[in-house]
Amino acid sequence: MADLATCPPLTSDSVRAAHPLISPYIHQTPVLTSQTLNRIASTPQKEPALKHTAFEGQQPSSPVFRLYFKCENLQKIGAFKARGAFHALLRLCSELGIEEVRKRGVTTHSSGNHAQALALAASSLDIPAHIVMPSISTKSKIAGTRAYNARVLFSGSTEPERVAVVKQVIEDTGAILVPPYDHPDIILGQGTAGLELETQVADLLKKDQGTGTAASQDHDGPLDAVIAPLGGGGLLAGTATYFSSKPATFVFGAEPSFQGGDDGRRGLMGGARIPEVSTLTIADGLRTPVGEVNWTVISDREMVRGVFAVTEDQIKEAMKLILERLKLVVEPSAAVPLAVILFDEEFRRIVEKEGGKKGWDVGVILSGGNTTVEAICKLYGEE
Amino acid sequence: MADLATCPPLTSDSVRAAHPLISPYIHQTPVLTSQTLNRIASTPQKEPALKHTAFEGQQPSSPVFRLYFKCENLQKIGAFKARGAFHALLRLCSELGIEEVRKRGVTTHSSGNHAQALALAASSLDIPAHIVMPSISTKSKIAGTRAYNARVLFSGSTEPERVAVVKQVIEDTGAILVPPYDHPDIILGQGTAGLELETQVADLLKKDQGTGTAASQDHDGPLDAVIAPLGGGGLLAGTATYFSSKPATFVFGAEPSFQGGDDGRRGLMGGARIPEVSTLTIADGLRTPVGEVNWTVISDREMVRGVFAVTEDQIKEAMKLILERLKLVVEPSAAVPLAVILFDEEFRRIVEKEGGKKGWDVGVILSGGNTTVEAICKLYGEE
Repeated sequence: MADLATCPPLTSDSVRAAHPLISPYIHQTPVLTSQTLNRIASTPQKEPALKHTAFEGQQPSSPVFRLYFKCENLQKIGAFKARGAFHALLRLCSELGIEEVRKRGVTTHSSGNHAQALALAASSLDIPAHIVMPSISTKSKIAGTRAYNARVLFSGSTEPERVAVVKQVIEDTGAILVPPYDHPDIILGQGTAGLELETQVADLLKKDQGTGTAASQDHDGPLDAVIAPLGGGGLLAGTATYFSSKPATFVFGAEPSFQGGDDGRRGLMGGARIPEVSTLTIADGLRTPVGEVNWTVISDREMVRGVFAVTEDQIKEAMKLILERLKLVVEPSAAVPLAVILFDEEFRRIVEKEGGKKGWDVGVILSGGNTTVEAICKLYGEE
Repeated sequence: MADLATCPPLTSDSVRAAHPLISPYIHQTPVLTSQTLNRIASTPQKEPALKHTAFEGQQPSSPVFRLYFKCENLQKIGAFKARGAFHALLRLCSELGIEEVRKRGVTTHSSGNHAQALALAASSLDIPAHIVMPSISTKSKIAGTRAYNARVLFSGSTEPERVAVVKQVIEDTGAILVPPYDHPDIILGQGTAGLELETQVADLLKKDQGTGTAASQDHDGPLDAVIAPLGGGGLLAGTATYFSSKPATFVFGAEPSFQGGDDGRRGLMGGARIPEVSTLTIADGLRTPVGEVNWTVISDREMVRGVFAVTEDQIKEAMKLILERLKLVVEPSAAVPLAVILFDEEFRRIVEKEGGKKGWDVGVILSGGNTTVEAICKLYGEE
C-alpha cells in the first residue's frame, strides 16, 4: 500500500482529486427517489414501537424526509468497494511506477466485497492479484474473484490464519498489501460516492424546481444530511471527509446492534475505539471493528455527528422495503441506514426538531447488493 | 380516450413529440450494463440444452452480445405503464381541455400496473380516477391504487364482469375510458422508453470510447437490436414505432410459451391476430392477447422483425440472473427478453450470423418490478 507519509490529507479536496482518477473505471451509479418511501419515513412510528426504548410513553416524533438513495449496489462488483480499490491501486502506481507494481503484484485477505473489488481493479490495470480467502468461503464468491483473473489462496477462517497466508504470499512474491478499509487512499476512494451523490441530488432538485415540486434550497449544498453504514469505516470516513467542507450537511453512521456489532457507537460513548468485535449480524459487511485511521475521522464530532444502531428485525424490514419499493437488490448491510431513518427515534427527533415542517433532504448510501435469491429467501422464508 | 381520428400517426416523430410532454412527470430511468451478463450471454449453450428443439444435434451458436438494460422497473409506479398513462391523459386534456377532463374523470379496468399508472397520472393532473379491479386482487395492489387517491370499484374477475362495472361507471359519472394498451396515445407514450434508451446508450458508448473499451460504431444509431416483452403490445409497438426511422436497429418481441401465452408469435405464423388467450404463465403481465391497434404495428415485418417465446424455467433463470447480477428486482414478465437472449437458439443464430465476431449491441427493456419478497421466495422456494 502507498506509504502513509505520501498519502494526500483526509480533506474534501483530496476526495475531489480522487474522483477523476477512478471515474474511467467505475460506474457513476444512479440516485433514486421514492415518494412511497418518503411517505413511510415521514409517518410517525406507532407508540408500541417505542416500548423498551428511552422514548417509551412519549409521543412519537413527526419528522419529514425526502430521501435520495445512492445506488452503490449497482456499482462494479456490486458494492462501493470498487472505488477504494481502484484509488488505492492508481495511487500505488503513481508512487512506485506501474511497472514496479505489475512486477510485484498486490494481495489482501477478504471473503467479501473487497476481494472482488481488488481483483477487478488489479485485472483492469494488468497487475497480478493474490487474494487470500477462508477455505469455507461460498463457491460463488471464490468463482467471482477468480473471474477477474485473481489467484485465490485459501486459509483458515481466523484472523491469525489469514494473516499468516498473506505474510507468506508477500514473502514469496513481493506482493504489496492492500487493506480493505484502514488506509487513507481507500477512505478517499470511498468518499467519491458522497461527491457524486451531492452533485446528482443538486441536478435532481434543479429539474424538480422546473416543475415546481422541489423543496426550496436555502443553504450550502443540497443535502441536510447523509447516512452511511459503518463497519470497518472506509465508506463512512470517506463520506465524512468529503462533506467536511459542507458544514450544512451532517454525516451520520448506521450500525447493527446485534451481539455488539455497534462497536462504533459504543466506542464513541466510551471515548475509545473498540478494536475487537464478534457478531454474527445479518449485516455481514459490518461485522468488522472500525479501523484505526477511520476512527480518527469517525470520532471527530465535526466530521460525523452521530452513529445509530438498529436491530436485526429492523434491518430486515428496511431491506424488504428497498426490495419491494425501490426495486433494488441490496445486501442486509446496505439496508442499515434506512432502518435508522425508519426506526431510530433519537435520530428521527433530530430531524423533526431541526428540519421542522420543511423537513430534511437526506442522502442514503446503499452500499452493496451482493446477495443471492437463496439468501433472501432464507432471510424471509421463516416468517 | 382521445378520438382515434385526432391521434398523431404511429411514427418515430410522434414518439419524439410525446417525450417532452411526459418528461416532467416520469423518471428518466437508468440504463445498466453488466460485464458478467455479457459474458454469460456470449457463451454458447450446452448441447443438451438444444435437445427437443429444431437445433438438436447441431453445434450451439456462438453469438457476441453487449447488453444495455433500460430499467423501467425503476419507473414511477414500478413499470413503463406510467409513460402511456401520462401521455394518454395529457393528450386528452389538450383535445378536450383540462377542465372538461377534470369534470368527467377517467376510468379503466385493470388488476395490474395500468391501474396504478392511471391513478398516478390522474392524481398528478388533478383528474378524478375510477379504477375497476377484480375483488380478488391482492390487498397491496388495491392499497397501491388507493394511495394515488383513486376511487377503487370492485368487479368479478371475468372480462364481461369487469366491462359491465366500467360501463356503469361511465353511465354514472361521464368518465372517459383509458384502455391499458390498445390505443395510439398509449403506444406512443410507451415508445419513449426506446427513445431514452437509444440516447443513453449513445452517451455510454461515447464515454467508453474515451477509455478505449467501446465497440466501434459504424451505423446509424448505437443499437443493433432492441428486445421488449410482448403482452398486450403497447410497449413492443411503441418501441417499434420509435425505431421505425432507424432501419439499422431491429426490434424483437419476447413472450412466454406456457399454455399458449405466445399468441403474438403464433399469430404471426398464422397471419392473423389471436384475439383470446388463457394462460397462467408466471409472466403475469403478458397473459393478455395482442391489441388490435398494436397488432397493426407488430405484424409489420418492417417494424418488428420477429417474436420469440421461452419456457417458465427459462424465465425463472433469467429473472434470477437479473436479481443476482444486475441487483434489480423485476417481475417475471420483465425477464422474458433476457430469457430469449440466453436460451432461444434461433435468436442467438441471427446474432451470430449477422453480428459476427464484433457482435451486437442489444437494448433490453426491463418492463417492471412490481413483485414482492413473498412472491420471489414462492417462485424459487421449491428448488
